Amino acid sequence: MGGLVAQSIHRSVLSLVEKNEDYAHQVLRDEARIDQLEIQIDDMVASLIAREAPVARDMRFVVVALKINTDLERMGDMAVGVVERSLALMRQPELPTGDLIVEIGNLVESMVLTSLDAFVQRDEKMARGVIASDDGVDTLRNRITRQMMDLMKTDPSTIEGAVDYILIARRLERIADHATNIAEDVIFMVKGIDVRHRMLQEE
Amino acid sequence: MGGLVAQSIHRSVLSLVEKNEDYAHQVLRDEARIDQLEIQIDDMVASLIAREAPVARDMRFVVVALKINTDLERMGDMAVGVVERSLALMRQPELPTGDLIVEIGNLVESMVLTSLDAFVQRDEKMARGVIASDDGVDTLRNRITRQMMDLMKTDPSTIEGAVDYILIARRLERIADHATNIAEDVIFMVKGIDVRHRMLQEE
Repeated sequence: MGGLVAQSIHRSVLSLVEKNEDYAHQVLRDEARIDQLEIQIDDMVASLIAREAPVARDMRFVVVALKINTDLERMGDMAVGVVERSLALMRQPELPTGDLIVEIGNLVESMVLTSLDAFVQRDEKMARGVIASDDGVDTLRNRITRQMMDLMKTDPSTIEGAVDYILIARRLERIADHATNIAEDVIFMVKGIDVRHRMLQEE
Repeated sequence: MGGLVAQSIHRSVLSLVEKNEDYAHQVLRDEARIDQLEIQIDDMVASLIAREAPVARDMRFVVVALKINTDLERMGDMAVGVVERSLALMRQPELPTGDLIVEIGNLVESMVLTSLDAFVQRDEKMARGVIASDDGVDTLRNRITRQMMDLMKTDPSTIEGAVDYILIARRLERIADHATNIAEDVIFMVKGIDVRHRMLQEE
């Protein structure tokens, strides 16, 4: 599930950056498989709980697996969302987007892969690295939105494409949010402490 | 949790339609409480599973409660997202948005309330009603996006505000998606059948 979702995200970014329709269509094709896997994993987890009645540490693993499963499926949806806008962009004149989209795409991809590694290896340090990267994604998304706003104002013929880029940046940011959720769940699993909603702890 | 989230969504729509800052700030204030409740509910569910080792129908209820908890917290996040754009819009000249935003707001709110009622009353029919409404939200969102695109092209001075409305429509649509998730989970809980990813069943 993790591998397939990571691959879809990778292909969604490639479809955008390289204007490659084949990658886009692969992402659309793989969505059904991801949806199927989500249901299978939920069922496996539910029957595992019913059979084994896990406690404490094992129970934390089970709850986290359920949550990560949901996050992965939503990440798959967002990859499809990126691809839909990326296909629309292929039919429009090229915009001067600079390197920001490549940059946000790379950062988000690395967060996704690291969050999955952190889960598999139960590695708290990796998980904290993912959480620390999230602010960088927000900054990049804001810069892209600002850049596209300015572009539209200067040249209204860019409106269609610029809105597509704004939406793509938001979808990539949402993928990063899900990777952050996974990282927080990994820390909960490993340490038994809850790092979600950090502001609560800072109060 | 459900009541508080539904209230935040209601206030986020009111803050937008009535340009009311007080409602907006209430939504921002209640976010921390919603985050706190999510953690408390997860903990309650985890300790309930550990203590009771529920099976079959009860286990379905437990898995669904965990999933709905996540959906509710994300809906709260989206309400905050609506409010952020709604506050930005209050500082900009008024746009001719027509009644579409009111319409999508009302539809989304009613889906949220019905999905929660369906859960509490274990009512499959209500849940199916929510799922049936989701296409209407998508249509409204597309109409709003189209309307705002046209507005920007005619009058570039509307770009900031029009992009805000496009993002608000998307956030409302995401709230409707979460309500649909809840409705699907209710049907799973009541009937033991999985109606997520309907396309899989149609294949």
